[in-house]
Amino acid sequence: MESPRSLQQRKQDTLGRLETDVDAWIASANAEGDAYLLPLSVLWDGAGLIVSTPHSSVTGRNLSRGGRVRVGVGQLRDVTMIDGTAEPLQDERAKDAFAAKHGWDPRKDAGEYAYFRIVADRVQAWREVNELPGRALMRDGDWLA
Amino acid sequence: MESPRSLQQRKQDTLGRLETDVDAWIASANAEGDAYLLPLSVLWDGAGLIVSTPHSSVTGRNLSRGGRVRVGVGQLRDVTMIDGTAEPLQDERAKDAFAAKHGWDPRKDAGEYAYFRIVADRVQAWREVNELPGRALMRDGDWLA
Repeated sequence: MESPRSLQQRKQDTLGRLETDVDAWIASANAEGDAYLLPLSVLWDGAGLIVSTPHSSVTGRNLSRGGRVRVGVGQLRDVTMIDGTAEPLQDERAKDAFAAKHGWDPRKDAGEYAYFRIVADRVQAWREVNELPGRALMRDGDWLA
Repeated sequence: MESPRSLQQRKQDTLGRLETDVDAWIASANAEGDAYLLPLSVLWDGAGLIVSTPHSSVTGRNLSRGGRVRVGVGQLRDVTMIDGTAEPLQDERAKDAFAAKHGWDPRKDAGEYAYFRIVADRVQAWREVNELPGRALMRDGDWLA
């Protein structure tokens, strides 16, 4: 097991991953408290994760509720966890950036796609057990480093 | 992109992965519909996934509700999704098997760990978009192959 990274290093690694990673695990729930999970293409805009999914899909309906959402980025032993709340995304330039990153423009897809922005208020990152202390990178929307 | 695998091949790959993978993404929710997500050590017993987490943790409290749980196994482009319901696990032999697999016995841990068995009723597996058709491996608790 490697030595735990510094807070600064974890933030740098995490932002690098958020820039380059293509997919993330999006956990959402319905009003009855039934959990759902799906890997979706993501675009990090510096403060939130933009995703697109059909309006009528389970994730689309869950994100429309505006409840708490949790996102897992990376691998099981090199994890970034993001807690936040989904809001509808209207910004066409953000949708352009999403299409440019993924080579896929949901606006041109037949699936009646909705866009959401998951606004991060908590970010954590850890690799192994020895990195569980100090895993908080953002609290209440503020970066700690 | 490789050709889509047969149903039989997907089931074989999935069972192989369930045998050998150490961790999985566990998505749960509370009664208010706030989603939670965490990677946990898992043990597949042929019909369900055994996990252990502190009683008082968010996941522990969510799984205690008995609501719908969804588990992501594998990587973002080689995914197995398992839907099921968590039930408390009492079986000491299963707990022994969990400890043997992970080299970690939560019963000896100070954290007041609870055990749950997530009983699978739906299993899906896919790699890329071309494997989305035919991704169902289990429906209503019955394997399709």
